[in-house]
Amino acid sequence: SIDGQRLWSSLMTMAEIGPSPNGGSHRLALTAEDAAGRRLLIEWCQTLGCTLRVDRVGNLFLRRAGKRDDLDPIGIGSHLDTQPKGGRFDGVLGVLAGLEAFRTLDDHGIVTERPLELVVWTNEEGSRFAPAMVASGTYAGAFSVESTLARRDRDGVTLGEALAVTGFAGDMAVGEPRLAGFLELHIEQGPILEENHEAIGVVTGVQGMRWFDVILHGQSSHAGPTPMRYRRDALAAAARLIDRLQGHALADPSGDTKVTCGTLEIDAASRNVVPGEVHLSIDLRHVDEGELDALEARFERELAAASEAFGVATHSERIWASPVVSFDSGCIDAVERAAKTRGVPYRRMMSGAGHDAVYVARVAPTAMIFIPCRDGISHNEAEYASPEHCALGAQVLCDAMLERANT
Amino acid sequence: SIDGQRLWSSLMTMAEIGPSPNGGSHRLALTAEDAAGRRLLIEWCQTLGCTLRVDRVGNLFLRRAGKRDDLDPIGIGSHLDTQPKGGRFDGVLGVLAGLEAFRTLDDHGIVTERPLELVVWTNEEGSRFAPAMVASGTYAGAFSVESTLARRDRDGVTLGEALAVTGFAGDMAVGEPRLAGFLELHIEQGPILEENHEAIGVVTGVQGMRWFDVILHGQSSHAGPTPMRYRRDALAAAARLIDRLQGHALADPSGDTKVTCGTLEIDAASRNVVPGEVHLSIDLRHVDEGELDALEARFERELAAASEAFGVATHSERIWASPVVSFDSGCIDAVERAAKTRGVPYRRMMSGAGHDAVYVARVAPTAMIFIPCRDGISHNEAEYASPEHCALGAQVLCDAMLERANT
Ligand SMILES: NC(=O)NCCC(=O)O
Ligand SMILES: NC(=O)NCCC(=O)O
Repeated sequence: SIDGQRLWSSLMTMAEIGPSPNGGSHRLALTAEDAAGRRLLIEWCQTLGCTLRVDRVGNLFLRRAGKRDDLDPIGIGSHLDTQPKGGRFDGVLGVLAGLEAFRTLDDHGIVTERPLELVVWTNEEGSRFAPAMVASGTYAGAFSVESTLARRDRDGVTLGEALAVTGFAGDMAVGEPRLAGFLELHIEQGPILEENHEAIGVVTGVQGMRWFDVILHGQSSHAGPTPMRYRRDALAAAARLIDRLQGHALADPSGDTKVTCGTLEIDAASRNVVPGEVHLSIDLRHVDEGELDALEARFERELAAASEAFGVATHSERIWASPVVSFDSGCIDAVERAAKTRGVPYRRMMSGAGHDAVYVARVAPTAMIFIPCRDGISHNEAEYASPEHCALGAQVLCDAMLERANT
Repeated sequence: SIDGQRLWSSLMTMAEIGPSPNGGSHRLALTAEDAAGRRLLIEWCQTLGCTLRVDRVGNLFLRRAGKRDDLDPIGIGSHLDTQPKGGRFDGVLGVLAGLEAFRTLDDHGIVTERPLELVVWTNEEGSRFAPAMVASGTYAGAFSVESTLARRDRDGVTLGEALAVTGFAGDMAVGEPRLAGFLELHIEQGPILEENHEAIGVVTGVQGMRWFDVILHGQSSHAGPTPMRYRRDALAAAARLIDRLQGHALADPSGDTKVTCGTLEIDAASRNVVPGEVHLSIDLRHVDEGELDALEARFERELAAASEAFGVATHSERIWASPVVSFDSGCIDAVERAAKTRGVPYRRMMSGAGHDAVYVARVAPTAMIFIPCRDGISHNEAEYASPEHCALGAQVLCDAMLERANT
């Protein structure tokens, strides 16, 4: 059995690197804080005799030797970067639970058939460099190495430059090593497990997601003398769009339709000026690709209707699409068996959030394990998972990893 | 008759002070640019033999002597400050048309019975120091001198400090001189005159306006794993509110109901985060005070409904209320007679925008004169009024002023 207390203590030690004011963590990708977190993990792993390799986009592979080093390894892991004022568990748990699994094997003198690789994927959150999961995406061939290295943060610093500054510009080819399987433990970031008093989510796949940048271009004018029927109010059109999309998503009895407008900005906003131009983002998600197509069509129709109703020109661009992912049945079953064997209440479920496992699943048999987080809150300093749930998740990860590494 | 070309040339000369990139003017209240504009006007007036007095909130009174200097003067004027990237006519026209009237009287050697005062009110736009029309409001007793001097801009500079820096901290008591009448020429800032091919608006009053600061406080959460029915989306609630208020205003067949949401900000906005907190402003206007009460009640009901529908707490504060104003019938009639005599198409109308005349009307018989502006556009660099309309407006102002100053 893994040591839940040791896991908790490494989680709390890591959280002290880049602490944020209200008890969260603030370690944006490839900042000094993120680099310090990575170095701490490397130190811990090297104490266990693991060897480090770093690929050209800064993904870390910490290898624990197996009996058959000619076989492809089993990967476990997640990410160490956080959202601005983010939580202490999102990503970090998946990495440190892997460390705890290695320590447990050491405690019991266990050597697996296949080697093991503890993986830390670069810039999962996408907060510093967009999009999210860009380095696991590069590993899986979804993005070219050059395009990834050239992505810029808000200050114009490229990901490649940030790698060089922090000392994490490795020389291993991206896509190496090939993995015989990948398992990622993560907090759910939603309320389903908690609501159903279940301790483990056996994650069967990830819903599809599409991101849009929308511009509504009307005409700014004076809020007093401009009659309503003369206005070309870009915010009124945006409000119509958002309200209709909310109504559509809320009316889906299955609850699978998800629509979010997370950013909205009025150009040269002033209290007594009818908004002339609005920029907003739309995030559409669904567990079914066909339904996601229909949702995108609905979004385009509602945008056209709002444009028409308020005399506002619109421009919409799809900037990211991540298709619905189904994980590998062998890996899913291994996770489910582990949960069953440990006698914990669990459910099979889809992930609502994107994770590095989304891209890794394109090149290796993959599955994920979820544990509940308090009130379903994540991307927030208040994010919390109990020591008991963290330990249970690490145990299931360790069990499933052992099963996959010995077959 | 006034000299339309001379008026146009002084308008264009003033517009060169604080020019903004696309042909507008950028002279925020009590900045170096505003001060330079004021100095130019003072120079022009002193050439005519006018005497300058400045009150404690920086209002300028440029006096042209009358035959009976024991009588209260007739005031004309408006403001010289502009919106950020504002137009060349808003406010400026009313001041420079007054100057043109003085020059015309000089040309013809006319001395009026009552003295005349060309008035430049400080900080009409409210862009630098909120609220709008604060210095004419202080003159009329709506705000105390101390509170006005203590109002701060975004950098924390007080209006009093800005007066001292620019050299416009006068020593005349605020409220002096008492005016026997006040006439303000302004561009309409809306499309009514242009649409109806009318050259002059005889302004009978100003619609009532109320400003609200609204906070919607929900719960930020992850856009992926958070089911729609769990969300407390502050932006969804804001969109519902805006859409319902727009619908309500657009459904008013009289067109008198006006609702604007001009500013909206999401706290810690991120593409994949359900907005947890939104701040927005609401501007409600109506020509009838009772209807404005009903509109405010409707706003409160829609806010409560949106709050209820999306599980979002709301806080709304009324930060400014300017009641419906009816101008003085004697002054209105003088303006109408002037328009009639000059044989120009005109209409009696209410003003949709607030103006210094709103507050001055509390302490002196007041009316306003509007001229059309192209496409009804104002608070915008593209703002434009034709030389012909400017000249006509100045003529009507001069005629009505003469009538009032000689009775
Ligand atoms: N786990 C996570 O927050 N990933 C970012 C991508 C997403 O928005 O789902
Ligand atoms: N004329 C003008 O823009 N005044 C500001 C007050 C208002 O919003 O009406």
